[in-house]
Amino acid sequence: MIVVMKPDATAAEIAEVIRRAEAMGARTQPIYGQDHTVIALVGDLTRVERAVFDAMAGVQRTVRIQEPYKLAARTTHPDKTVIQVGPVTLGGPEVVVMAGPCSVESRQQILETAHAVKEAGAHILRGGAFKPRTSPYSFQGLGEEGLRYLAEAREATGLPIITEVMTVETVPLVAEYADILQIGARNMQNYGLLQAVGKVNRPVMLKRGISGSIKELLMCAEYILSNGNMQVLVCERGIRTYETATRNTFDLNAVPVLQRATHLPVVADPSHGTGDRDLVIPMARAAVAAGADAIMVEVHPDPDSALSDGAQSLTPEQFAALMEQLRRVAAAVGRPMAGTGQRSPNGRAAAGARPVFQP
Amino acid sequence: MIVVMKPDATAAEIAEVIRRAEAMGARTQPIYGQDHTVIALVGDLTRVERAVFDAMAGVQRTVRIQEPYKLAARTTHPDKTVIQVGPVTLGGPEVVVMAGPCSVESRQQILETAHAVKEAGAHILRGGAFKPRTSPYSFQGLGEEGLRYLAEAREATGLPIITEVMTVETVPLVAEYADILQIGARNMQNYGLLQAVGKVNRPVMLKRGISGSIKELLMCAEYILSNGNMQVLVCERGIRTYETATRNTFDLNAVPVLQRATHLPVVADPSHGTGDRDLVIPMARAAVAAGADAIMVEVHPDPDSALSDGAQSLTPEQFAALMEQLRRVAAAVGRPMAGTGQRSPNGRAAAGARPVFQP
Amino acid sequence: MIVVMKPDATAAEIAEVIRRAEAMGARTQPIYGQDHTVIALVGDLTRVERAVFDAMAGVQRTVRIQEPYKLAARTTHPDKTVIQVGPVTLGGPEVVVMAGPCSVESRQQILETAHAVKEAGAHILRGGAFKPRTSPYSFQGLGEEGLRYLAEAREATGLPIITEVMTVETVPLVAEYADILQIGARNMQNYGLLQAVGKVNRPVMLKRGISGSIKELLMCAEYILSNGNMQVLVCERGIRTYETATRNTFDLNAVPVLQRATHLPVVADPSHGTGDRDLVIPMARAAVAAGADAIMVEVHPDPDSALSDGAQSLTPEQFAALMEQLRRVAAAVGRPMAGTGQRSPNGRAAAGARPVFQP
Amino acid sequence: MIVVMKPDATAAEIAEVIRRAEAMGARTQPIYGQDHTVIALVGDLTRVERAVFDAMAGVQRTVRIQEPYKLAARTTHPDKTVIQVGPVTLGGPEVVVMAGPCSVESRQQILETAHAVKEAGAHILRGGAFKPRTSPYSFQGLGEEGLRYLAEAREATGLPIITEVMTVETVPLVAEYADILQIGARNMQNYGLLQAVGKVNRPVMLKRGISGSIKELLMCAEYILSNGNMQVLVCERGIRTYETATRNTFDLNAVPVLQRATHLPVVADPSHGTGDRDLVIPMARAAVAAGADAIMVEVHPDPDSALSDGAQSLTPEQFAALMEQLRRVAAAVGRPMAGTGQRSPNGRAAAGARPVFQP
Repeated sequence: MIVVMKPDATAAEIAEVIRRAEAMGARTQPIYGQDHTVIALVGDLTRVERAVFDAMAGVQRTVRIQEPYKLAARTTHPDKTVIQVGPVTLGGPEVVVMAGPCSVESRQQILETAHAVKEAGAHILRGGAFKPRTSPYSFQGLGEEGLRYLAEAREATGLPIITEVMTVETVPLVAEYADILQIGARNMQNYGLLQAVGKVNRPVMLKRGISGSIKELLMCAEYILSNGNMQVLVCERGIRTYETATRNTFDLNAVPVLQRATHLPVVADPSHGTGDRDLVIPMARAAVAAGADAIMVEVHPDPDSALSDGAQSLTPEQFAALMEQLRRVAAAVGRPMAGTGQRSPNGRAAAGARPVFQP
Repeated sequence: MIVVMKPDATAAEIAEVIRRAEAMGARTQPIYGQDHTVIALVGDLTRVERAVFDAMAGVQRTVRIQEPYKLAARTTHPDKTVIQVGPVTLGGPEVVVMAGPCSVESRQQILETAHAVKEAGAHILRGGAFKPRTSPYSFQGLGEEGLRYLAEAREATGLPIITEVMTVETVPLVAEYADILQIGARNMQNYGLLQAVGKVNRPVMLKRGISGSIKELLMCAEYILSNGNMQVLVCERGIRTYETATRNTFDLNAVPVLQRATHLPVVADPSHGTGDRDLVIPMARAAVAAGADAIMVEVHPDPDSALSDGAQSLTPEQFAALMEQLRRVAAAVGRPMAGTGQRSPNGRAAAGARPVFQP
Repeated sequence: MIVVMKPDATAAEIAEVIRRAEAMGARTQPIYGQDHTVIALVGDLTRVERAVFDAMAGVQRTVRIQEPYKLAARTTHPDKTVIQVGPVTLGGPEVVVMAGPCSVESRQQILETAHAVKEAGAHILRGGAFKPRTSPYSFQGLGEEGLRYLAEAREATGLPIITEVMTVETVPLVAEYADILQIGARNMQNYGLLQAVGKVNRPVMLKRGISGSIKELLMCAEYILSNGNMQVLVCERGIRTYETATRNTFDLNAVPVLQRATHLPVVADPSHGTGDRDLVIPMARAAVAAGADAIMVEVHPDPDSALSDGAQSLTPEQFAALMEQLRRVAAAVGRPMAGTGQRSPNGRAAAGARPVFQP
Repeated sequence: MIVVMKPDATAAEIAEVIRRAEAMGARTQPIYGQDHTVIALVGDLTRVERAVFDAMAGVQRTVRIQEPYKLAARTTHPDKTVIQVGPVTLGGPEVVVMAGPCSVESRQQILETAHAVKEAGAHILRGGAFKPRTSPYSFQGLGEEGLRYLAEAREATGLPIITEVMTVETVPLVAEYADILQIGARNMQNYGLLQAVGKVNRPVMLKRGISGSIKELLMCAEYILSNGNMQVLVCERGIRTYETATRNTFDLNAVPVLQRATHLPVVADPSHGTGDRDLVIPMARAAVAAGADAIMVEVHPDPDSALSDGAQSLTPEQFAALMEQLRRVAAAVGRPMAGTGQRSPNGRAAAGARPVFQP
């Protein structure tokens, strides 16, 4: 860490910064510039709290040199984390596709969609049972009933399921049903929830908040990792900018930035990222070309009638066409599309063998 | 609501929009423009879900005419909501000041600060016992011990206390101690938490998320209001923009926008808004000049040693000087500064008579 | 256009809006909703100025239904604009690559780069002779000397050249040398300059400003088109957001949004978009996968010694590897990479036959 | 400057950074941390170009310690710059108000407005003769005719005038008429224009671009200052963020940040900042409370009929009421409102004695 002193900082203020830093276990190295004195803190900085120095008299600002996350960093863990979910391998060379409706609306709707996306080649089924909605007057999801329908769809198709968990209290319930727990964008910094899923024996997909920086996303992953759960995926799904031509600004740059910064598998969700069915197809292709390990896409048997996010949902026909395109783009960038459960006779068995919940 | 059809929308698609809207209870009025057909939905729109139309074939986009929040809207409740907290009136003509440290760090620290801010004329004591921190490795607050120290500081000074609640599970505990519950910026859209504090008999101050729009802030207030708790304050505390000269961009424009849009009392927090002690004083003055009902300011007896947010905390001396300035600016805009508990012999009694928690 | 009246608008205010709209040539259709009266303006809106209605008493806001640009809109010109520059066709089925250094630094540097990028398969040579620089103390470009070196590189390789023009006064000079004039991001809304290049017989590539919306980009293209120059390309090169992990946020979503909204060829510049060499390669692939008509990439024979933008410049070797990847991705999305001048014996002749400047 | 090397930087890469830095005249001091080596550059950094190091092999990033602007910095020029314009002193203890219509629309309109704002106590008359408009089909201003009307209004009232200059070619013309030249937000980084007004003997007010950082604003001021014109004012007028409740986000925090960073007088424009008449009054009060040296406000005799920006223009009556409020707030923060020409018998003479244009 670098502490930049103000031009008029006194010798006593400089000495106090050095004293405090060394009391926290750092070695210090002052540098006397033309206008500013700068103090470098080196060695073991585990106990050094940056904000302390920001607040000290005579300090202009501090500059972090090392990243604040450790368990999530690729520098310290150069090998990619590989997460096995039933028959599906996330974080390996193959590209994985998660697909399904925004919300589970009925037993028939989720079963119909599950068969359709499986047919087209999807690997994991998505669907929301608990829905965070901007308006208290909107449809809030089917709750546990929705989870049961998802489990039934898994039995019927062999596709592992991913679904969102919104509160600490429902973590055990959702973990009982889901193969992957999803933390939604609005909860990226819900630290109590992050700690709770950090203690569960289930992979967790953490979505970037719409105003979360990539660094903050990794700090939030660190909350999960530091609670003992090493099976974390991070997901780009659009950030909030001034541009209103798209619902969010799908920040695809995050994919190669994350691939460089972390060993965790990187997922891209162009459906929420763009909020516009016409844009999902080109941006899903782009996400594979940019190096995403997995893609998450919303599919609905009748988007015109969807209770949520219909405008960004593909029809099963559009999704099947997209899968064809994704296979070609994946091949072009040297990453085969993962095979489907259809081709793996162990699909259902593997899904049945998913790890047991241990709270 | 207005549904704008695509230029090439078919007559069947137009008819289907009309059919669906009328099935939801709306009356419709089509307008045939040069390029676009537009369908106006009028009458009772309670059961009309906008997203349904966004998703329909032939629809280009929808435009909302009425605001989506009802209980929070000033159009339907022109009189300001007035919230009485012990001796303090929020939402009336007087300007109220909440002050105290970011975190409760020790019994002595909070007692010392409470006496200092009371002496300078503050009306409410702030202090965090549960702290949301970006890093899992940072100080996370004293928890219930901190709440007990806050209560002791209230007993000693007569100042009502405001403190943050972060999780549904701790709502009863925090409500047992606090006079006002604070929902922090990161939890603005934590709907489970909003519903929980909506069922508590305590005023709630809801902070705007760093990427929350003003409309979303009011929709989140609506979550609390629609659960039965009508004592809600809304607080501007800085948004995330591209500008890095300040930690956040304190969006003071939100104060007059909120005063026009809602009847709820409006608070401004220049400490988190700017993140920089030098800027807190001018921006606190500006907040009063812009029409805030209350100001929240961080004060620490020794900011250089604060465990969190020291860089934006005022010393007790700076705070006393600020209070002098705020009194003059408040007078200039025709809003007297509220009196302090010192002058009100009923202060402590009133604080003691605060409403009982009813889960 | 829709004019939304305030809930308390008077009958006289409503009548005045109608009177004014009809005086401007519009037909009006009032809609009486539960809270608001809304007035739809239909028919010929050419003479209707939206801001007039925004300012009128009783008006809450106005909503535009038609796009404000006409010449740039795809709705009125469904066929793509195809621009021929020497042997290169922009806006057709083939993907075009523009490559070269940020700045022309010396005769040798530009000649060496031109040969290298031609060898690797680039179609157009880029290079800046006039450089907009944030600091008045930085290298500002070689000026006309740089233009002469660019022309020499064109003679030597047959590659058409694109270079930036920054001021009205230098439009004739730059047009004398360049095959395509570039308007940089900082000048997107420099209307005098847009009008000047609108009168020149040269294709113009207009870059999106770092805070320009897609709609504003097309309005700026409209400035050029409405001055008579129909050969306009639009280019995404990164916008300014809160995220600092990349220099800008390369908004790749703009590519499919622009392809839908306009008939003008769409270019993507991942070098300025990301500002980071490591990210240029994956994001260039992504841009082709997302449907860009052309890609612009910075290449420098020795990026470590570049006078500007070295951090985002590829080496010739990296560029050659990228071209291989782009060919495969282009094929995967059904758009062949354009052939190079090497394979076209008419390359140089065609370049010689470029249209004469007519001020 | 600090150069942070990558964790795996080689000794040769470190040595090359040191060699290059010393060749540019800097002294270097390497610091060997646990993961990173960091090289501090100290001494005379005038010839050190940061981008060179960003581009070098083995470099992760660079951190600037000193501000890149020199002439604009308060550290090197602690005394405020005071600019005298006729009878008006900008940058002194008194608060100055500039008022007038967005555009000069007719002789009568500007004369009527000038008398009204003078009557209410304004000190400087604003009005646009050349207008940058988003649409090529909108009213573009009266041009030189507008300048003549402005001059006539000055003769009639004694108020100095400020008006925008948009192109290099019109700098001499506008400088012939105007007392202060305004550079609009869209032209903040139009470097040719900045250099041109840097050579003129007239004060220049530089507006912050809607995506300009405060640092960039000061770098653009540096362009003017480094060309010899030391009479520069900087003006906050709203930035572009995700929030759409206001047309722009008026970043009032820029006022105290600029007061700390630069010696140049600081102006705030709440009319463009908010784009909403209702918000102009509270935010103008707030701007004075936050420490602005001057306020710019749009006033129109009949905002409902304004050809541009009517929605944000005050009526003369509203403006007179605002002036009363501003006087009280200015007094509350210890800064008297400047007297008006009415009270200064030398007003007109002084205006007549404005400095002669020297191109």
